[in-house]
Amino acid sequence: MSPAFDPERLAGRIAGGEPLALARGISHVENESDGFEALLERLDGRTGRARRIGITGPPGAGKSTLTAALTRHYLNQSLKVGIVAVDPTSPFTGGALLGDRIRMGELSTEPGVFIRSMASRGSLGGLATATREAADLMDAAGYDRVILETLGVGQAELDIAVSADTTAVVLVPESGDGVQAMKAGLMEVADLFVINKSDRPGADRLEKEIAIIMSIRFANRPASGAGGDADGEADDVWRMPIMQTVASEARGIEEFAAHLDRHFDWLRSTGKLEAHRRTARLRRAHDALLRRAGRDAQRIWRRASPETLDSGASPYAIARRLYEEFRETLP
Amino acid sequence: MSPAFDPERLAGRIAGGEPLALARGISHVENESDGFEALLERLDGRTGRARRIGITGPPGAGKSTLTAALTRHYLNQSLKVGIVAVDPTSPFTGGALLGDRIRMGELSTEPGVFIRSMASRGSLGGLATATREAADLMDAAGYDRVILETLGVGQAELDIAVSADTTAVVLVPESGDGVQAMKAGLMEVADLFVINKSDRPGADRLEKEIAIIMSIRFANRPASGAGGDADGEADDVWRMPIMQTVASEARGIEEFAAHLDRHFDWLRSTGKLEAHRRTARLRRAHDALLRRAGRDAQRIWRRASPETLDSGASPYAIARRLYEEFRETLP
Repeated sequence: MSPAFDPERLAGRIAGGEPLALARGISHVENESDGFEALLERLDGRTGRARRIGITGPPGAGKSTLTAALTRHYLNQSLKVGIVAVDPTSPFTGGALLGDRIRMGELSTEPGVFIRSMASRGSLGGLATATREAADLMDAAGYDRVILETLGVGQAELDIAVSADTTAVVLVPESGDGVQAMKAGLMEVADLFVINKSDRPGADRLEKEIAIIMSIRFANRPASGAGGDADGEADDVWRMPIMQTVASEARGIEEFAAHLDRHFDWLRSTGKLEAHRRTARLRRAHDALLRRAGRDAQRIWRRASPETLDSGASPYAIARRLYEEFRETLP
Repeated sequence: MSPAFDPERLAGRIAGGEPLALARGISHVENESDGFEALLERLDGRTGRARRIGITGPPGAGKSTLTAALTRHYLNQSLKVGIVAVDPTSPFTGGALLGDRIRMGELSTEPGVFIRSMASRGSLGGLATATREAADLMDAAGYDRVILETLGVGQAELDIAVSADTTAVVLVPESGDGVQAMKAGLMEVADLFVINKSDRPGADRLEKEIAIIMSIRFANRPASGAGGDADGEADDVWRMPIMQTVASEARGIEEFAAHLDRHFDWLRSTGKLEAHRRTARLRRAHDALLRRAGRDAQRIWRRASPETLDSGASPYAIARRLYEEFRETLP
């Protein structure tokens, strides 16, 4: 099949830092246009330089405002920032209140900022896979920080959070949020806790609540970096920070960024970063393999005759029949 | 490959209504044990009798309490109820506060009730697929109502909600919930709105809020049943109820059940039920086809040599190489 675009050429333009080329490349990846893997492959050697930061939490925790504030902080350090929003409640995805959207809109016009929202449906290879690859393209395009803003509920969403180098879980003081976080499995993905909107009552209570829960977890296993294999060595143990911010007023953002840097340095010094990156590459190969198989299956599905589909046979018999066809007709 | 169990025999026991057999069958489906599709195929002819009810909404909306109250209502009508909980915040999945878990525990000992929580990770074929098939087994086992309790956030979770015949979206009066629902795409899956914990302030406000949003939607497209193709005919249009409950006191449950029956009758009378069921069968065939392809890809992945994986080639080159191997080694 002839590619829908020239991967070689587009890769060059993305590597050259052209935002329009990057946007087009991400669309090709999201749509799995013919040639999208060739594009990813050509840019593969340029990835691994960006630091990936996952910002996740329940709806209404202020993830986008925190993302915006952190982005401004990085801009002031002349760092380029890529943002992938896979949060259906995020202003970046257009799902938010007007006020938010305006605030984010300002950010999107900043040079050195690239914002992309991922459709949370459709992508055959899976939302998490497409999102990781969108981050790869931003990385290859020379963005120093790639922020993955994802809703902290749902399987695909949590898969995205854990794929970041550092994952910050954002909560708000409203009662029950700490408990809610337990339930939603957010604790498992957290490298760092941010209690946002901490000018509201209950912030200190929530901080204590989380601290207690984490201390209980420490009894079982040390809270180590995402993907890190905690073997109990002191310097191998990541003591998870719990901090407070008021993102809408940029309060606590310096400290937030400092904690992110500390965690990244910790990952690097313990060799966990290398292990994490290796795991990420293997995951890509694994995902790419399954996506290829799935894509061929989809092709067959589209070619399935109405007779076969309405044959009255069980769905499983139909699948079996189509699959045998699928194996024979592979190009 | 020889099945890990005897599908024929297990199918018979499930059809005979043996809860232990049903539990084992669901585990085989969830784990995709050898022979699980043979099991599903043998029971395929027995499915389609149960009414499937999706109960979804944000964390803390009281989905489980509503599910429990609805279940008691059905028990009083001597209807058998199967519950599939794919909500990480659900007491059914053990993720809840002690009080909730005790309340659910009582229910789980009721004859005529079968409760199963699905792990929200791992299932290769996908959480939504495994959950639909778990519901199929409950259906085949003679449960009259199958309630799918799923968190109303996240892609896989919403896929589950839309697979039910009728999907109830549960919200609570807390401010912003209506807006939150818009954002999270819950509006798209709703056949019915339940404002739970309506003894709290703000219930009427939220009801008005939803009504306004829905009236705006009506301008675009009539709110029709899940999967229904609204063609604008009066009787073809489902006017979405918005109702209030206090599930913890079983208030509004009769009305809730009545609305669910009304919607099911509407689906049946408009022919949408038949269309919906046909779509569901096609989806199963589609999912089964992709799962087969994916399973073979996984098999190859497990056989991949460290040399190949650490070859330093790009993940996409590795996937391509493995995939060619994959196609040659298919049994």
